[in-house]
Amino acid sequence: MGKGRLEAFSDGMMAIFITVMVLELKVPHGQGLDALLPLLPVFLSYVLSFVYLGIYWNNHHHLLHACKQVNGAILWANLHLMFWLSLIPFATGWMGENHFDALPSAAYGLVLLMSALAYWILQSQILRSEGCESRLRAALGRDWKGKASPLIYLAGMAAAFCVPGLAQATYVLVALIWLVPDRRIERALQSGQEA
Amino acid sequence: MGKGRLEAFSDGMMAIFITVMVLELKVPHGQGLDALLPLLPVFLSYVLSFVYLGIYWNNHHHLLHACKQVNGAILWANLHLMFWLSLIPFATGWMGENHFDALPSAAYGLVLLMSALAYWILQSQILRSEGCESRLRAALGRDWKGKASPLIYLAGMAAAFCVPGLAQATYVLVALIWLVPDRRIERALQSGQEA
Amino acid sequence: MGKGRLEAFSDGMMAIFITVMVLELKVPHGQGLDALLPLLPVFLSYVLSFVYLGIYWNNHHHLLHACKQVNGAILWANLHLMFWLSLIPFATGWMGENHFDALPSAAYGLVLLMSALAYWILQSQILRSEGCESRLRAALGRDWKGKASPLIYLAGMAAAFCVPGLAQATYVLVALIWLVPDRRIERALQSGQEA
Amino acid sequence: MGKGRLEAFSDGMMAIFITVMVLELKVPHGQGLDALLPLLPVFLSYVLSFVYLGIYWNNHHHLLHACKQVNGAILWANLHLMFWLSLIPFATGWMGENHFDALPSAAYGLVLLMSALAYWILQSQILRSEGCESRLRAALGRDWKGKASPLIYLAGMAAAFCVPGLAQATYVLVALIWLVPDRRIERALQSGQEA
Repeated sequence: MGKGRLEAFSDGMMAIFITVMVLELKVPHGQGLDALLPLLPVFLSYVLSFVYLGIYWNNHHHLLHACKQVNGAILWANLHLMFWLSLIPFATGWMGENHFDALPSAAYGLVLLMSALAYWILQSQILRSEGCESRLRAALGRDWKGKASPLIYLAGMAAAFCVPGLAQATYVLVALIWLVPDRRIERALQSGQEA
Repeated sequence: MGKGRLEAFSDGMMAIFITVMVLELKVPHGQGLDALLPLLPVFLSYVLSFVYLGIYWNNHHHLLHACKQVNGAILWANLHLMFWLSLIPFATGWMGENHFDALPSAAYGLVLLMSALAYWILQSQILRSEGCESRLRAALGRDWKGKASPLIYLAGMAAAFCVPGLAQATYVLVALIWLVPDRRIERALQSGQEA
Repeated sequence: MGKGRLEAFSDGMMAIFITVMVLELKVPHGQGLDALLPLLPVFLSYVLSFVYLGIYWNNHHHLLHACKQVNGAILWANLHLMFWLSLIPFATGWMGENHFDALPSAAYGLVLLMSALAYWILQSQILRSEGCESRLRAALGRDWKGKASPLIYLAGMAAAFCVPGLAQATYVLVALIWLVPDRRIERALQSGQEA
Repeated sequence: MGKGRLEAFSDGMMAIFITVMVLELKVPHGQGLDALLPLLPVFLSYVLSFVYLGIYWNNHHHLLHACKQVNGAILWANLHLMFWLSLIPFATGWMGENHFDALPSAAYGLVLLMSALAYWILQSQILRSEGCESRLRAALGRDWKGKASPLIYLAGMAAAFCVPGLAQATYVLVALIWLVPDRRIERALQSGQEA
């Protein structure tokens, strides 16, 4: 089974998730700067979620790149990831509209946590599959980013109820950690092609 | 005529249908758990419909995979299927907002029933087409899932007016039956490639 | 310049136009049949526009199929067609919400007319281009459908102000005329491949 | 790393941005011409933004066409461009709903300016990459359009606070300058293929 449609479907969904968040940026009725200011938390949440979806798209791109064939388990693991990513716009809007309050901030972290777990499941299914290259395993190495992220999300969710803004800071931290795309895979695949 | 655009168009539409349902999950204005609770029926309906659209995407993927060429009849049968799938977000929203009341629950079943019939028509057109592999026919076998689903939907629609929640239970049942992707086709195609 | 992205972009846009119309089908707050009835004109308009967009997608598919390469003029002619098609959801919603009143019905016809002209411009650019097969010209023949449709739309727009429902009847008529996909092209291309 | 998914993802996003603007064209409740008139500024803003997104899609198409491979820096430069393009619907709606007032008009210019800078960054990354053809550099030549546009946007943003309508005039001017697609690249690539 080819991976073309899996990639196309995932690309379409991630493109739409980003756009759904733009729809949350409701056009204000006033015309002055003071009409824009209340949108600031929604806008900042949008930027953060845009970066997160960009990271997922990028890593998804690298992950699938190592595959030649996909099976039913990968298809469903991918849909499972898409389900949690589809909740990012909702979590983003709720956090933004409530000006980074405790519960919405923790809920945002929960969606990020579940997305990370879903990505990990997808990665495991791909590693298990015969159609994918074994050097992906070598490329991922110890995968410390994938292991650290859920823990930081959990810390962020707890922090949301203690110090205002700390949860957001931890989510930004994880984004920065991942912002460097998985060069490990890129490099390992390249060296594999040269070898 | 190639099948590439048919697949891309269908993928795009199914990706959007899923997202339209997310839009129905309107961001609540409060910040507490009590602001989230009224969304629970809408959320549960979303999960069910997400799974259904995932099943359709998966089976559509397998069905088209056996095809090399498509004709005008297949194009229109596919658009007909897309029409009924496009009503799933509306039916989902109506059922969710009315907390699984009788008529909305039956309407949801009706859309599922019409989608199943449209899928059956598409499958028949593909089986009839010369561009598609005859082993798809063998792979489908007696197609008991395809025959049982419409009957269970009809039962569910009737149940919606008798016992609250029974309709939902039957819809979940059909989803579980189909959740296993059409391994028949996968296996038959593989054995065909090996032979 | 390849045609792949032109097709993908057009497919994406047409898929979204259909979905935007679904969003106009707003989930009613009541749960009875009387809550659904006011949606009937919007629903019927949706069905008509779905069929129209399906026809455009189908014919666009056939038209581009005869092309190997596209140039800048074709790219812009295609975007021009997309512009008018993008107004179909708005025209559909306005006609549906006003229960097929005179002016909205004529406006719907105007959008259909402009879409037909834009399609004709695209077809002319493709016929003029060297990258496209000359047998497309033969296949189109006298193109009586393409010539008759704008005239019928004009008649429908005039009828909208005279007899209620007559405009809709003419739009349905054109849809029926086109519902048969451009078998001329399909047949001519096939015979060309056989020759 | 192939460029297929980068193109597909960008096409999907640009297609959706256009559609989000259509959603801003809210269906009026009245049925007469006077119900349509208040929509005129929103409609004109839509036309302008549609043309801009069409220009970006066209130039993006030409730019990527010269590439065979993309790297992580190009992926992120592309996402950065998409971020600014994603704000065009919001800026369009704000400008249209406020009937081309000073601040919304300048904000629209700011989004255009940032999009132009993001496009320039993407172009620089592509020129720097080894996977892309060196004749793209020759084709772009002195790139006077790319250099003049940001300056005109800045002038337009200043004009927004002085003379009503002047900002819009400058934005239309830049669109006209770009409406001619990058024939330089098209021509240079063709002559490269002939040579």
